[in-house]
Order: sequence, then C-alpha cells, then structure tokens
Amino acid sequence: MQRALDVTRADNFPEWYQAVVRDADMAETSPVRGCMVIKPWGYGVWELIQQSLDRRIKDTGHDNCYFPLFVPLSFIAKEAEHVEGFAKEMAVVTHHRLKLIDGVLQPDPSAKLEEPLIVRPTSETIIGDAFQRWIKSYRDLPLLINQWANVVRWEMRTRLFLRTAEFLWQEGHTAHADREDAMAETMKMLEVYREFSETVLAMPVMAGEKPDNERFPGADNTFSIEAMMQDGKALQAGTSHYLGTHFAEAQNIRYQDQAGGLSLCHTTSWGVSTRLIGGVIMTHGDDDGLRLPPAIAPRQVVIVPMLRDKPEDAEVLDYCEALARELTGLSAFGYPVRALVDRKAIRSGEKRWNWVRRGAPVIVEVGPRDVAGGQVTFMRRDDLRDGDKVRSHAAPRAEFVAGVPALLAEIQAALFAEAKARLDGNIRTGINTFEALADYFGPAGDDDEAGGAFRGWVRASWARPEGDELEAVANRLKALKLTLRNAPLDQPKSFGTCIFTGRPGVQEILIARSY
Amino acid sequence: MQRALDVTRADNFPEWYQAVVRDADMAETSPVRGCMVIKPWGYGVWELIQQSLDRRIKDTGHDNCYFPLFVPLSFIAKEAEHVEGFAKEMAVVTHHRLKLIDGVLQPDPSAKLEEPLIVRPTSETIIGDAFQRWIKSYRDLPLLINQWANVVRWEMRTRLFLRTAEFLWQEGHTAHADREDAMAETMKMLEVYREFSETVLAMPVMAGEKPDNERFPGADNTFSIEAMMQDGKALQAGTSHYLGTHFAEAQNIRYQDQAGGLSLCHTTSWGVSTRLIGGVIMTHGDDDGLRLPPAIAPRQVVIVPMLRDKPEDAEVLDYCEALARELTGLSAFGYPVRALVDRKAIRSGEKRWNWVRRGAPVIVEVGPRDVAGGQVTFMRRDDLRDGDKVRSHAAPRAEFVAGVPALLAEIQAALFAEAKARLDGNIRTGINTFEALADYFGPAGDDDEAGGAFRGWVRASWARPEGDELEAVANRLKALKLTLRNAPLDQPKSFGTCIFTGRPGVQEILIARSY
Repeated sequence: MQRALDVTRADNFPEWYQAVVRDADMAETSPVRGCMVIKPWGYGVWELIQQSLDRRIKDTGHDNCYFPLFVPLSFIAKEAEHVEGFAKEMAVVTHHRLKLIDGVLQPDPSAKLEEPLIVRPTSETIIGDAFQRWIKSYRDLPLLINQWANVVRWEMRTRLFLRTAEFLWQEGHTAHADREDAMAETMKMLEVYREFSETVLAMPVMAGEKPDNERFPGADNTFSIEAMMQDGKALQAGTSHYLGTHFAEAQNIRYQDQAGGLSLCHTTSWGVSTRLIGGVIMTHGDDDGLRLPPAIAPRQVVIVPMLRDKPEDAEVLDYCEALARELTGLSAFGYPVRALVDRKAIRSGEKRWNWVRRGAPVIVEVGPRDVAGGQVTFMRRDDLRDGDKVRSHAAPRAEFVAGVPALLAEIQAALFAEAKARLDGNIRTGINTFEALADYFGPAGDDDEAGGAFRGWVRASWARPEGDELEAVANRLKALKLTLRNAPLDQPKSFGTCIFTGRPGVQEILIARSY
Repeated sequence: MQRALDVTRADNFPEWYQAVVRDADMAETSPVRGCMVIKPWGYGVWELIQQSLDRRIKDTGHDNCYFPLFVPLSFIAKEAEHVEGFAKEMAVVTHHRLKLIDGVLQPDPSAKLEEPLIVRPTSETIIGDAFQRWIKSYRDLPLLINQWANVVRWEMRTRLFLRTAEFLWQEGHTAHADREDAMAETMKMLEVYREFSETVLAMPVMAGEKPDNERFPGADNTFSIEAMMQDGKALQAGTSHYLGTHFAEAQNIRYQDQAGGLSLCHTTSWGVSTRLIGGVIMTHGDDDGLRLPPAIAPRQVVIVPMLRDKPEDAEVLDYCEALARELTGLSAFGYPVRALVDRKAIRSGEKRWNWVRRGAPVIVEVGPRDVAGGQVTFMRRDDLRDGDKVRSHAAPRAEFVAGVPALLAEIQAALFAEAKARLDGNIRTGINTFEALADYFGPAGDDDEAGGAFRGWVRASWARPEGDELEAVANRLKALKLTLRNAPLDQPKSFGTCIFTGRPGVQEILIARSY
C-alpha cells in the first residue's frame, strides 16, 4: 500500500518520528547545536496548547509574570549547596561585548563579566529571590505565579520536541503558608495537567507520584503524568512538585504569621513544555503522517480547490471562500472554527497529501462537480483509509457546514478513544518477579534503532524500597533500559508481593521503557 | 492637594516615571544587571498588547514561528562584514557546564564551546539562514514570518520598559520577489503599528521615514512611529525596515523566478517591544499614577467591597460577585469585559488607591447602602478629580451594567483625545533657522534630572543633506540633545528654506528630544 511517509512505525519508530516532524512541517534542526526551529504548523500547535492551558492556569487563580533570562552564578551556587543531584549542564554567559581583534570577531577580553550569568535552566532561584522580597505577611499568601518562557539545558543527545537544548515551557511557582495548602496546590495542578492532556491533546495519561529516585532535585514529592507512545514507551508529559521548605530555606522566603511569628513558606513548582508536541505526534501519528486533535489543529478544516486553469476555476474558488467564511462563523471547543482555503500554486493532489501529512482533521476537495451539485466532498484524517484507498465522504453543503462542530468533536473523541484503548489495553499486571519482568520486556535495543516488540507498561506491586536498596533496583532496571514511571494515584486496597524484593508490597508502580 | 504618588510630573518627570512603574506594580529591577521582572499587572498589559497585535499580524497573512535563542558567532561576524555601524554589545555564551573547582562553582574549562554563541540581539541572521533553506522558487514568495521572543542587548544605562538589557518583542521578517512588493509590506506593517498604537494603546503617533543617519544598520529605508511623551520628548514606538537585498546577499537568499533565473530576495523586518508599555505610561499617566486605556487594562472594572467585619458583609460580597459575573458576560472591544472583585484582606481605602495608582479604568465601591439601594457608585480613572476631591458617579445597577461597554469605549476615546490634542498642539512650525531652534528648546538638562520647560517637537523644512553634511547636522543637534525623528508620511506640496543649510527645503522633518 502506498503511504504518505517513506517509513512506517513498525519498520523503524524513531525514523518514523523524524519523518513526521519533517513532513508535517513541524520543526527542523537549526545551525545552533541542539536548538530547533519551530515552523508555522508546529508553532501553531504550541500557540493553541498555550491558549487552552493558560486559561486553565488563570482560572485556578495564577497570574503570569516575566522573570529575567539570566540567573547570577551565585544563585545557582547557593542552590547547588542545598540540592543534591543538581545538574550542571548549562549555557554560561561570560562576556558582554564582541570585538574585532586581528580581523577576527571575538569576545572582548575587556568586557568579561565580573560574575558569569547562567541562561535559566529553570527559574526556581530567580523567582524565589522575588518571592523573598514580595512576601511579607500571611496576607500575601498564597502567592500564585506562572511564567511562559524559553529555558536552556545543555543536552548531548537531542531529538526535536522531545529533548532539545532550548525549549519553550510554562513554569508555575507558588508559595503557601503550610504543607497542606502547598500539597493541595501540587495536586490541583497535576489534575489540571491530566484534564488538559486528555481533553485538549486527546492524550490519555496516568497521573501518579514519582518514586524517590526520580524526584526533582530539592522536591519532597514529585508527581507526573505519563503518556504511552505507540512504541510502548512512556513519555513524562508534565510534572508537579511539592518543594517543602527547601527552597524557602535556601532563599529565606518567610512570612509573618497571624500570631506575629516568622515562618518559612512551603513552595511548589510545576511545568509542561514543547515536549507535549512530541507526545501528540507519537500518540496520534500514523503511517500517513500526523493526525492532530481538532482542539489543537491550527487549521481544522482545509479546503483544497481542484483548479484546472479553466474559466470555471473562479467559480470553484468562490465556492471555497464562501465555505470557509461560513465555517469561520461557527464555533468549536469554544473558539471560532479555523478554516483555510489552500490557494498555493501547486497541484491539488500534492496539496491533499501535504495536509494529510500535517494532520489537518478535515480535508475538503472542491471541484466543478461539487459546485454544480451544491455538495462537499471531504476526508476525515482520523479515519483516512478504506483498505488501500482513501475514504471519501460527501454531504450537501448546508448539512456539512452545520455538522462541522459536531464532526470535529467526534474526531477529537475518536482520537482519544483510540489512544485510551491502547493505554488501557497495554498495562500488564500479574508479573510478580524480576525475572518474569525481564522476560516480558526482552532485550533492550538502542534508543535510535528500531525497538523490539511492542510491550507497553507493567503495573506491579512493590515494597517501596528506599536509599541504597532503591538505587540497586533502579540499576537492575536500567540494565534492561527500564525505569520506574510513577505510582498511580488510584491504588488498590491490598497488594501482591514486591516484584523486586519478594517482601509484601505497599504500592503499585508502573514500569516501562521511556523517553 | 493630596496625590496618590509622592512625586509629580512637573516636579521631576523621570522620578515620576519610576514612581508610576513601582506604585502601579508594573515591574521592578532584578538582581541581574539591566534585566527587569515584569509583575502581573505589567505582564497583563503586555499579554493584551500581544493579543491585539498578534491578531493584526495574522490577519495580514503572517505566520508565527520560533527560532533559536542563540546565534553562532560566525553569523554575527558575517553580518558585521556587510553592515556598517553594527552594535557589538551582546551577551556571549562561552561555556556549557559549571564545575565545582576548589569549592567554587565556575565555568568548567573543559566545557568551553568551540564557537561562542551570542544571545540574539535580533534574529535577522538566524532567520535569514532559514529563509535561505526554505525559499527555492517564486512560488515560495512572499514568505511572511513573525516571532514573539526575548532579545538581549547589553545596555549601560537602563530604565524599566524603556531600555533594558533583556526585553520582549515581536520581530517580523519577510522575503519578497522584488522591491515593490517588499516596500508595500514595509509600509503595510508601519500602518498596522500606527493603527494599533492609536486604536488599542490610545497613543497617537506620527508615522514617517527616519533620516539616513537614524536608519537601522543594513536597511535601505527605515520607517517609524513616534509618540509624544508628557515631557515633550519623542519615543520611537515601532520601526519597519525595507532591507533591500543586503541581508539576502550576505545570506544567499535567492529564488528561481518564473523565467528560470536566480534572483536575490528583497527582505523586510519590523518590530515593537515592551518599550510600548513605557510609552503608555508616559502618554496617559497622571500625578495619581497610571491611567490604562481600557483595551489593554488587565482589569477594566475593579469592584471594591466596603467591608466592616459585620454580618452585612456577606450581602455586600454577594452583590459584588453578582455584579462581576454580569459584567463578565458583556463584551467590550471584541472580548469579554474583564471585571474583578478585590477580596484582599486590606482596608478598602487602601484598595481604592492601589487601583487608582494601577490605572484600572473604572473603580466601583460597594457598601451596604449601594446594596440596599440597588445602585452602583463608581469612579472613572480618566476623570478622577473634581478639584481636590475624587469625582464619584452613581447609577442604578442595571443601568450601570448595561452601560459598561459604552463607558469603556468612552474612556478609551477620552484618553486618545487628550493625548491627540497634546501631540497636535505641540508640534511647532515656523522655526526656520538653527539659532531659532536652539532658542526654542533652550539648554538641555541631564536625562535623569527634571527636564526644562515642556517644548514638544518642531516640524521644519530641510534640504535632506547627506553624508558628512548630515553628520554635521546631527552633531549640532546632539549638542542640544536634539535628534531628527522622522519625516512624516504626509508632506506638503512646497517647502520653506532648510533650517540647517538655508538651501531650499525638499521635505519636512520632526526635531525633538527623545528617549
């Protein structure tokens, strides 16, 4: 069968991913190592993610701010003292001027900074510094702040959207009077992420708590949402941290309580990033390219006029434009329908496949016969094929237009249902020993090669070992390229024996290969 | 008379500006030299600026993208070869890791970058590199791209919003087949800025062409919008550049034309930044603080409950919340009305003055008497004072609610009219010699001190000298702290003698002190 991509998921999943990113015109590598160029179609998806998530962040009482790109080295040094396992791969600014010396443009030695500046890998310290100034009394709490920003973490191996040196994200930072309030915030934002991911991205996730060895450095508790990609790997799609009083201590974030005493604040942070786009691609893409959930499709209905350089072309174009105008007047998911007439000067067959690869939810093709018959012929990207052929639908124009909001909702629901069935059907239980686990997953391939058989995840009971014992578990898993993902929030009342220690289990945890 | 700020515009304009930025809770300096923290109220204004301008940028056919934060030094070096007057004050990244050496965290010498990276001061070169890859044929033109991003230019003297090392902006970059199309784009975006500035920011501007000595390095033509601040100085609020084929030559941006030949693209760029917020403050602020045009006020109607720790408080709060809900259901300037009940645990008198200083367009105070009478008592921030007293308005509740969209439109129009009268009334004509110009403006004060008398701008004929002669003119003006702003687009048919050379004039140009 002829497919729109030159590699299939089954053949080579990592190569398929790259092909989708490229052929759907989402992003490309840049001449700057590890940094990506996000192209209009990819950035359009990000803008819609921002719009939907930002509304949720504001509706839960958070204000957006903007903090400096740079963090003084001394802030980072102070944090490093307080936090074990602190990553040090960061972009360091050391000079503030270039100079032509012997014909070569270079950092001007006379413009060396007294203190180097770090390009923010995250803004905990610079925002903590503001919190320390802003918070005086219990009346200032809770302080609920969010920021949309670019951050940089030097990464040796990068993959577009999934792991890049620079990426875009939102980072929420909040301060509270006590543990209870801060923990409630942590869980509230985890739930915002879960609901957002499932409703808007149509990407089902498991929400749960990360094991100790996977916690954010400095956090008391880290929670995550984990999504299952089509190769069975887990993608950590968002995290929410209860930071206890660690950052407050390091940065002296205190408030005067109602009794007049001075108390440490309890803080949280939480974030999602452009990585979500990678998750969407690997959740919904197929061998013809991307399939976008309508809620985040920059164009939900694309209209391709079938032109033949003949007089009737004008009529066809008028028909297309009128159709687009009517659609734009309708509303779907709370916003006007996003329709486009593709007037580019290329063949209409080429246009069709461009939009298939980009994953536009509904593709309409208008020829003279449609105009004459007052009808609309269209494809649904979520249900493109009828055997080897493309499945085409036809409807009277008025009926089609009136039905578009419902059609988009149906496509959104269908994509979610398909992914949900995959997630639910591929979390294996009943594996009780490490040997059985190793057998189940089989040997680990190289990350960049075609993976082995699809295995999904394992959900097993464990005794929640700590310290060295946990580290030993993590190392045994690592040899199989497996990791502990999270302990789902919904836990049973009783547990089997621990898959690692044979002791009585106290919790169920997800085990998987991961991105 | 008691004022809400502790310094007036007349006393000391620069200090007044700082007081507004601080007391309106817009922004503050950060521990990172020259970088600002934009606080919720200030960032809320920026989000509304983005929303309105982004719609205009998309409606004129541009797509948003995202390009890397870093630019390889070699790109900058290549540009520097092609462009005279190229600024070299930039943040330079030289290392990608920190290391603890002798107990001190510092750049790891073994992690020195082979090629330093520059934090983008603007993205011409990195976007030009993408254009060079993306553009193959005339079918790919025009290519119309925009980016919202942070940029960094090392500045020695900074002032919040007006000049900071890091700032937020949008930068449009486009490529076209010929001069005509590129120039049409340049003028179209200048007009978008003018219309946006006047309609949304209520900030009247003069649109015109910059003289040669004020052109963007590498541009054939630079156009600007210039706004008049309340101290009479000009603020360049946005620029639009026709770049000819300079950048295309430097970066090899070529296309195959319809005849099959290879031609250079003509490119443009245009941008506005968080500087606009400084312009809004200095256009509309008064001695009680900021006055925000409703179109960009994060809260358009703020409702302050007058609570007395008595049982009737509950009723007052209910009344306030119901009022806010009703207002949120209405629409102003195409978006839902933004109403807020200020429930903070501080005295209501303090709240009133907080919102006065922040410039909320309408401030409602609700006490038990209002609840009993079913009425609303409110202040208009654009017309706050009746002599020494605050001017209070009252209306039956339903009437007030129904009238809010019109009231907000009226406030927007009133702020524009006030600023427009100031601009129109303070462009002095009829000054024909340099001596008369010097007399008119009088001696120049220090930038950071209280200025001299308000002088506004001068519009004079000039012979448009070039090269050394123009440089001499610029230097004479500089001694008086004056600059050539722009030659307004609307020019008369005939001109007086040149104010600088005494030769016949060929154009009228604006002369002013400036930010």
